[in-house]
Amino acid sequence: MEKIAIDKMTDLIQNYWTPLDIFRVNDTAVRIVKIVGKYHWHKHTTQDELFIVHKGQLKINFKDRQMVLEEGEGFVVKKGILHQTEADEEAVVLLVEPIDIITQGD
Amino acid sequence: MEKIAIDKMTDLIQNYWTPLDIFRVNDTAVRIVKIVGKYHWHKHTTQDELFIVHKGQLKINFKDRQMVLEEGEGFVVKKGILHQTEADEEAVVLLVEPIDIITQGD
Repeated sequence: MEKIAIDKMTDLIQNYWTPLDIFRVNDTAVRIVKIVGKYHWHKHTTQDELFIVHKGQLKINFKDRQMVLEEGEGFVVKKGILHQTEADEEAVVLLVEPIDIITQGD
Repeated sequence: MEKIAIDKMTDLIQNYWTPLDIFRVNDTAVRIVKIVGKYHWHKHTTQDELFIVHKGQLKINFKDRQMVLEEGEGFVVKKGILHQTEADEEAVVLLVEPIDIITQGD
């Protein structure tokens, strides 16, 4: 096993909204994803999901508010909460979530 | 719930080798720890532990080799592996590990 450089892994990503697993620690995955634009509204009924901004700015939309996260900021979307991620310009985001995360659309 | 800025949390830390919980996502904690010098040799028999360097340089010593991690690099120490963390100068490290991680000394 060798160490992993987050920026080098980011350079391997070819498509937006396609998380790449970079670490697995117990039953949890740390994934990196490049995003731009808006994702669809969804939730994870039984699982929390942590977003940490690695590069750029991430907006997380909720039905009653919008959270704006800058580089080095993070937020846990608790299980069952409907949300939509959004970025005006390309952003790189770390996800910390169960390996087998299950998604339900709006 | 509000967003968390990792650097602001780091500024709250007063003591070395004392991890501060900054996120909880399911049964996993993301902790931040300031370190300098050497920790004692230990292992976690049933639990993996992920280290990601936030600032500075982290060395992880194993019985047969040393891994040197720079900013933005990470490594999962698999369960049962004896290890010792070390930093020549102050470093800030993110830990991703079970909330209830159990440690066994050498």
